[in-house]
Amino acid sequence: MTSTLSRPQIIANRHSPVIKRIRSLQTRAARERTGTFFIDGMRFVAQAVRHGVPIQTLVVAPGVLVHPFGQKLARQLQRAGTPCLAVAQEVYFSLSQAEEPQGIGAVVRQRWEPLYRIDPSEGLCWVVVEAVQTPGNLGTMIRTCDAVGAGGVILLSRGTDPYHPGAVRATMGSLFSQRFVRATLSELIAWKQRHRCMLVGTSPSAPVDYHTAQYRPPLMLFMGGERGGLSQDHQALCDVMVKIPMVGGCDSLNLAIATGVMLYEIFNQRREARTGSAAPDPAPPSAPGDRP
Amino acid sequence: MTSTLSRPQIIANRHSPVIKRIRSLQTRAARERTGTFFIDGMRFVAQAVRHGVPIQTLVVAPGVLVHPFGQKLARQLQRAGTPCLAVAQEVYFSLSQAEEPQGIGAVVRQRWEPLYRIDPSEGLCWVVVEAVQTPGNLGTMIRTCDAVGAGGVILLSRGTDPYHPGAVRATMGSLFSQRFVRATLSELIAWKQRHRCMLVGTSPSAPVDYHTAQYRPPLMLFMGGERGGLSQDHQALCDVMVKIPMVGGCDSLNLAIATGVMLYEIFNQRREARTGSAAPDPAPPSAPGDRP
Repeated sequence: MTSTLSRPQIIANRHSPVIKRIRSLQTRAARERTGTFFIDGMRFVAQAVRHGVPIQTLVVAPGVLVHPFGQKLARQLQRAGTPCLAVAQEVYFSLSQAEEPQGIGAVVRQRWEPLYRIDPSEGLCWVVVEAVQTPGNLGTMIRTCDAVGAGGVILLSRGTDPYHPGAVRATMGSLFSQRFVRATLSELIAWKQRHRCMLVGTSPSAPVDYHTAQYRPPLMLFMGGERGGLSQDHQALCDVMVKIPMVGGCDSLNLAIATGVMLYEIFNQRREARTGSAAPDPAPPSAPGDRP
Repeated sequence: MTSTLSRPQIIANRHSPVIKRIRSLQTRAARERTGTFFIDGMRFVAQAVRHGVPIQTLVVAPGVLVHPFGQKLARQLQRAGTPCLAVAQEVYFSLSQAEEPQGIGAVVRQRWEPLYRIDPSEGLCWVVVEAVQTPGNLGTMIRTCDAVGAGGVILLSRGTDPYHPGAVRATMGSLFSQRFVRATLSELIAWKQRHRCMLVGTSPSAPVDYHTAQYRPPLMLFMGGERGGLSQDHQALCDVMVKIPMVGGCDSLNLAIATGVMLYEIFNQRREARTGSAAPDPAPPSAPGDRP
């Protein structure tokens, strides 16, 4: 019992009400009701801090949190007055879905913005998502959005939740750099017209090669779901429909891969426009033995 | 019992030895021992047939297989003399990890080739994989390899199994278009030298922008693992190390995304070299309203 005394208030019961409340955030219903979600691991907590996201409750398992960086992060947050729960290893493991839980996590408020507040010229482009079935795909798309400096993600379907644990995990913490909007199709159409956005959709049967299309800002990339791609109705709204060519018998790309290929094409065109060169720079070192 | 009589030999017991043997293929040990794996769903069986992969055992659940295409496929295979097990719904569900099992699957032989038989100039390039932790990532990489017409995948680590059910599922059936090789590092080095391959590695700290590098065939793309990327030793073997630029605080891309972005860059360069244009074609239709 001495260890319990020297670390007061360590929650050792995984069925305590506060722990049950945090664990319930694995369900969509609890996330919606509370407007919060749980992030798990040093990287996520550090990214939340870095982006100024207020942490509602820090959760630390002192027996698990052995990494000096994580320990320092926890101390800093506690000193700054962040409410903190100390929990036993078994309790932390009941909250975490990580293979190797690091013993630091947090309950964080979800951030949503109304579409009318969004200026589409902020960031490389915005990604409009029709409906994504796999949370991991959505999270990977958000991670790539961060990598290319996209502004954020506009979700048309309520079935798609960027705060699902599987989506959050796949973002690797990059979700805090992105802004999230839920909008109806009619809101999207009005907003697109007001801001004179270029809306680009993708489909394997589209007439234009994605690599020859020219993408002008403000730009929205419209991605469909894993199964049928963009619906015909949504395709009809696009200013241009492009295809990512495939050879052989392949009939589709993974949704996150298609999004990544599109985003990097847009990214490359934008930086080439900035440097004024339409074609890639001349030859880099490519002879064998150039690198030690 | 009449239904059992009218459809003879329907296996209704999920614990029957033959069903247990097929279910055991979810484990690596059984896959290695038998040199086979289980594919699940119409798309997969159809792709196996399309690529002339001999099917060891077809598994059909007549009560589940309602899709005419799948029914036709099963009939064709049975007529061609493929050994077939008819199983009850509950038995098929015990074999399938799909959300909506389609009632048709097959036990198929794994295909491996020795490195010395591979001509690296076949296909767009070959992907060398150091170690992939997530089967889904490996499967998605294979799917993208198929899309760009890569020759196949060379695996350096025995920990990486393209026949893992999660990897197979993520390929969406495209694994049959790709050739698989396991090789040691020294075999790889000797083979690369013999064929004068260009070996390209990626790292966020590499000196050369992936979009300015020039990729000449025969080409090998060397991808590291999810966590640390390519090891220093492996980086040293590369003829050129390239980085995929990232903005903001992003420090890495998902492994399958990085592979996809690289493969499409190589793909685009190759087709531009073929058409003789170094820069993308001129403007496509991009004005609003171009599409109905």
